[in-house]
Amino acid sequence: MLNPCDAAFIADLAARLPEGTLRPPEPRDLTEPRGRWPGRAGVVARPAGTDQVAQIVRACAAARVGIVPRGGGTGLVGGQVMPEGPLPLVLSLDRMTGLRGLWPEENVIAVEAGLTLAAVQQAAADAGRLFPLSLASEGTATIGGNLATNAGGTAVLRYGTTRDLCLGVEAVLADGSVVHGLKRLRKDNTGYDLRHLLIGSEGSLGILTAATLRLFPQPAATVVALLAVPSPAVAQRLLALCEARLSGLVTAFELIARTGFDFLAETGSGLRAPFDPAPDWCVLLELGLPAALDPQVSMAALYDEASETGLVLDGVIATSQAQAAALWALREAIPEANRRIGSISSHDISLPLGAIPGFLAEAGARIAALGPLRLNCFGHLGDGNLHYNVFPAKGRRREDDEALAGPVKRLVHDLVQAAGGSISAEHGIGRFKAADLERYADPARLAAMRALKAALDPAGILNPGAVLRG
Amino acid sequence: MLNPCDAAFIADLAARLPEGTLRPPEPRDLTEPRGRWPGRAGVVARPAGTDQVAQIVRACAAARVGIVPRGGGTGLVGGQVMPEGPLPLVLSLDRMTGLRGLWPEENVIAVEAGLTLAAVQQAAADAGRLFPLSLASEGTATIGGNLATNAGGTAVLRYGTTRDLCLGVEAVLADGSVVHGLKRLRKDNTGYDLRHLLIGSEGSLGILTAATLRLFPQPAATVVALLAVPSPAVAQRLLALCEARLSGLVTAFELIARTGFDFLAETGSGLRAPFDPAPDWCVLLELGLPAALDPQVSMAALYDEASETGLVLDGVIATSQAQAAALWALREAIPEANRRIGSISSHDISLPLGAIPGFLAEAGARIAALGPLRLNCFGHLGDGNLHYNVFPAKGRRREDDEALAGPVKRLVHDLVQAAGGSISAEHGIGRFKAADLERYADPARLAAMRALKAALDPAGILNPGAVLRG
Repeated sequence: MLNPCDAAFIADLAARLPEGTLRPPEPRDLTEPRGRWPGRAGVVARPAGTDQVAQIVRACAAARVGIVPRGGGTGLVGGQVMPEGPLPLVLSLDRMTGLRGLWPEENVIAVEAGLTLAAVQQAAADAGRLFPLSLASEGTATIGGNLATNAGGTAVLRYGTTRDLCLGVEAVLADGSVVHGLKRLRKDNTGYDLRHLLIGSEGSLGILTAATLRLFPQPAATVVALLAVPSPAVAQRLLALCEARLSGLVTAFELIARTGFDFLAETGSGLRAPFDPAPDWCVLLELGLPAALDPQVSMAALYDEASETGLVLDGVIATSQAQAAALWALREAIPEANRRIGSISSHDISLPLGAIPGFLAEAGARIAALGPLRLNCFGHLGDGNLHYNVFPAKGRRREDDEALAGPVKRLVHDLVQAAGGSISAEHGIGRFKAADLERYADPARLAAMRALKAALDPAGILNPGAVLRG
Repeated sequence: MLNPCDAAFIADLAARLPEGTLRPPEPRDLTEPRGRWPGRAGVVARPAGTDQVAQIVRACAAARVGIVPRGGGTGLVGGQVMPEGPLPLVLSLDRMTGLRGLWPEENVIAVEAGLTLAAVQQAAADAGRLFPLSLASEGTATIGGNLATNAGGTAVLRYGTTRDLCLGVEAVLADGSVVHGLKRLRKDNTGYDLRHLLIGSEGSLGILTAATLRLFPQPAATVVALLAVPSPAVAQRLLALCEARLSGLVTAFELIARTGFDFLAETGSGLRAPFDPAPDWCVLLELGLPAALDPQVSMAALYDEASETGLVLDGVIATSQAQAAALWALREAIPEANRRIGSISSHDISLPLGAIPGFLAEAGARIAALGPLRLNCFGHLGDGNLHYNVFPAKGRRREDDEALAGPVKRLVHDLVQAAGGSISAEHGIGRFKAADLERYADPARLAAMRALKAALDPAGILNPGAVLRG
């Protein structure tokens, strides 16, 4: 159905675009972080503006050439690489890095898709504001990619996912038409919410070229603590206590398993838990407080109440920015340690909060029955979002237990499904999970998704094979 | 294209449903609050559950009979009445009032579409939780209608619109298939967000039958003040101060013009401003605070700082629940006073916050040039959402100035459009604003909306003529 992005197409397109807009693919255009799936491209297009994006999409539509949009390339589900099918055009947004506008008094910023998340955060900070989206790859990931995947991260509990932070989008649809939707409005009930349909569609329904985003006042003070807790179930009661005492002011509530600290030691990270021995479970808690609340007093009051009721066993409260950064460094180093150890199967799941203890007990027992495997379960407990990763026993390599990858994934996802959870909480579907989506999605919803894809991209040129397989 | 809901169709459908599911239409099934558009129906269907909804939709799809879904019937844009076209079936959700589940420790509730908003609030309160959606018609409006229209209300500033409060939906699509999406998840990135597409689609893409909703801890204390401000522009600076001092804790920030107090007096409401004379502009401010912040001290500190910097001219801080309720009663009585005075044209607009002062100056001057009209501008200033209503001079009736209705509306909406605003901030499009949507919507977005409608409801049976005209 699609045609390859061949020399004739490229020559024809090049003649219509400013010189330098197209170039041959380089390795950096074709990779994904796990290094498992090879990307391919006939050419890389680097439009300098939305009009050029539209021109490229129109040409691809006319020739039925597939388009793989590319931001920072940090996505974890292969949405940015197309290993199969007719050779696509890779559409890089890396030249679209304009700041379209900044209205500090409105708490709004308008940015182009190719800006890195860190650059958006910095632009907000320079204006005395906070753009709260925060995730490990923020120095490389682009805001366009964050929007396309509805990225999560560590501040969702307080500020929401990327979609919650977006007021409007500018996008190029599959026919090359441009949706001019950079509204700076908190409320707009004029028909179907195309913004929310495009956000999280991973480039398969339209190309996001710019967005208006919500900013927030910076909290007067933040305070961070690392708290040892008896179990994830008790950690959830601790969260309920935090929310009861400081509703709306809890920024992050991250779970860390002892395995995380073990992996930091095993991989020579130089980082270690501030407890010896490391507890089975810790929570990294961050509060963002108004000036009227003293951060140390507020955190100490929470700590005391939690200690007295047995919700916390031990704890460290950071008393400086440096200490706070050091506690966060522990949390943020875990994904890299995981990568070095090499997981058999990793899972980005979410569960109803009440289902988490039962899931952990059941999944842990079933995985133990498969062999002497190691679990590293960590992540955004406040959102019910766990990164539940399974590793070989110490001394063994991923390759040694490769045969268990399928059974482990199936077991985890089946339990998640049975508990009313999600097999992709924050990473998306991309190509790695497209078959899983077919297995687990509600049939009526899946049929509706196919109808929406056919309606907005009838030739199937937008990120072919991502989210939905052909 | 559609067929009427005639006797043969009704007889056939009745034979397949439990007795009592269908009944002839009564006046209450066919009204809208402004009393301007007459509804019509061949029959009213009152399904007792989602399966019956699906059965009715399948029958209508097979016979190509239009369906007008009906909740509390309080919508202000005629989404619930179909005055033209082949006689439809009215699908009332009034028997679907089940509480499907309540998980206080997860801050989640699952409710059927026909529950009133007040009943949902009460169920949450009974469990010690807050469901923050709040609007004047909450005793009659149903949560299904709130979701279908993405209702706004007075707590959007802190808690978001209805869509922000919804975790998942159960819905019947136009082919009678059922989307089982009652997830209790904060994060779920498994493909296109059908939930957000159905929310705000006003029953034209699917029938919402149930939803999972976010609950919140109840604030330890709330405190309300009515503050006289020099102008809406200064009111916005006051909001910025509130957010800087108490980010995340400002629940409501409502603008009231002196005209509002005049109308309360003129209509014999018995309510009056706690200032004499009433100031040109007031703000109703509500804070929801954690236990560690004293409500009176916190509000007084804000008031003092605002007074010293000229942001506030005068003010009343409620010192009891009764006083707080009395201040809210002023705000909430304004729509009814407006109704009694009788507007020539009323507008539910939103604007970028920075554009509001300029809009008010320009629109006010242009309307004054049309004749001796009166303006009542009030509403959710914190969201940039104003109810900007235009009335005849004192002593004249709406009918006397009917000829100005068209020009006034056009003038207001043109200025809103030029300022990057929305012609429907929280009420939706329905049938009253379908032509306005065609005039003002971005063409590419409108074309995409038509494609989405054709994809999900190819025969056009779902709320025909609402949002999109045929």
